[in-house]
Amino acid sequence: MKIITIGREFGSGGREIGKRLAEFLGITYLDGEIAEAVARETNLDKNYLDTVLENGISDIPVSYAHSFSRISPVSDSARLIAKQHKVIKEMAAKSDCVIVGRGADAVLGSLHPFRIFVYADMQSKIERCRKRSDGENLSDKEIIKKLKSIDKARKATHDLYSSTPWGDKSGYELCINTTGIDIPAIIPLLAEYIGKFFDGRE
Amino acid sequence: MKIITIGREFGSGGREIGKRLAEFLGITYLDGEIAEAVARETNLDKNYLDTVLENGISDIPVSYAHSFSRISPVSDSARLIAKQHKVIKEMAAKSDCVIVGRGADAVLGSLHPFRIFVYADMQSKIERCRKRSDGENLSDKEIIKKLKSIDKARKATHDLYSSTPWGDKSGYELCINTTGIDIPAIIPLLAEYIGKFFDGRE
Repeated sequence: MKIITIGREFGSGGREIGKRLAEFLGITYLDGEIAEAVARETNLDKNYLDTVLENGISDIPVSYAHSFSRISPVSDSARLIAKQHKVIKEMAAKSDCVIVGRGADAVLGSLHPFRIFVYADMQSKIERCRKRSDGENLSDKEIIKKLKSIDKARKATHDLYSSTPWGDKSGYELCINTTGIDIPAIIPLLAEYIGKFFDGRE
Repeated sequence: MKIITIGREFGSGGREIGKRLAEFLGITYLDGEIAEAVARETNLDKNYLDTVLENGISDIPVSYAHSFSRISPVSDSARLIAKQHKVIKEMAAKSDCVIVGRGADAVLGSLHPFRIFVYADMQSKIERCRKRSDGENLSDKEIIKKLKSIDKARKATHDLYSSTPWGDKSGYELCINTTGIDIPAIIPLLAEYIGKFFDGRE
């Protein structure tokens, strides 16, 4: 069972690394499928779940929270996250895969995944956000605020379920600073590195 | 100018990575030469300097400190470290090189080195210490105490001169957890990764 989990700072290119790694290795890339499965089980909107499940419980907009009639937003968030964990375990059990975010490093800890954390300098993250139009019409200051807010929510959600803090190197096999790095160029090297890690375990 | 600096937790295999990388790349490995040069300039014993300069100012044994007749141990430590920085800059200016520890990441910051930090789980570090006989006749508890004490001194010395804390991933291009990793197997991959980083900068 070869599972690769990728934690990442918003704007650092972690998702790009995850997608490219999965493609290069010819293994499953789990992302939207997770929210889709949770949506099927809960009858909630997939796009809404995408936002909540990726960015964490401190990020639930009040307008959505109001739509839960019978239970409080907090307990509902916990319930959604628990449902997501169940889905992640089921999907990861089916085949080798790459999972980006979603606390997968902690959820799948007993399966000994190769855990990557991707980060970058603030300037590099701002540029990446602008390139992919995440930062359209925003000032640098506003982008920084957005980045910090998303990372804070990711950390809060992650740390509820993990024995090592989000982004703390002790919880990862490899921490990659993408500042000044050409991501496509390092994918084959990463794939080989991870292969050696799994070989050593067999 | 291609400079690779390696910070590391004691017992994590950082020095082994440094030596093997330099050998693989065919570039200079700077280590004992630095203490030798400082020894020549100060008329102090090389072995003594090796200990002080590698493990930091909080680690100067009282017996040695007493041998400095005219100045206090602390100002003398600062003077030695400043001398070491000068030597590091001179040596790094001469050729591409790998430097392990000694705050080289901060000292050579303006030359934009590729900065690696090497770490590992405590159990893995204990085993490595036992293998290389650093932990002869010591209990696990005693080895852990030794590891923590050395890392604390390294951090204290490093952080005097660096804008990013010792071991904090933001100050490194790559952080490598050697737990479960076969070091010789990853050297060619690291070398290629670093090459791509420098290529991107040219």
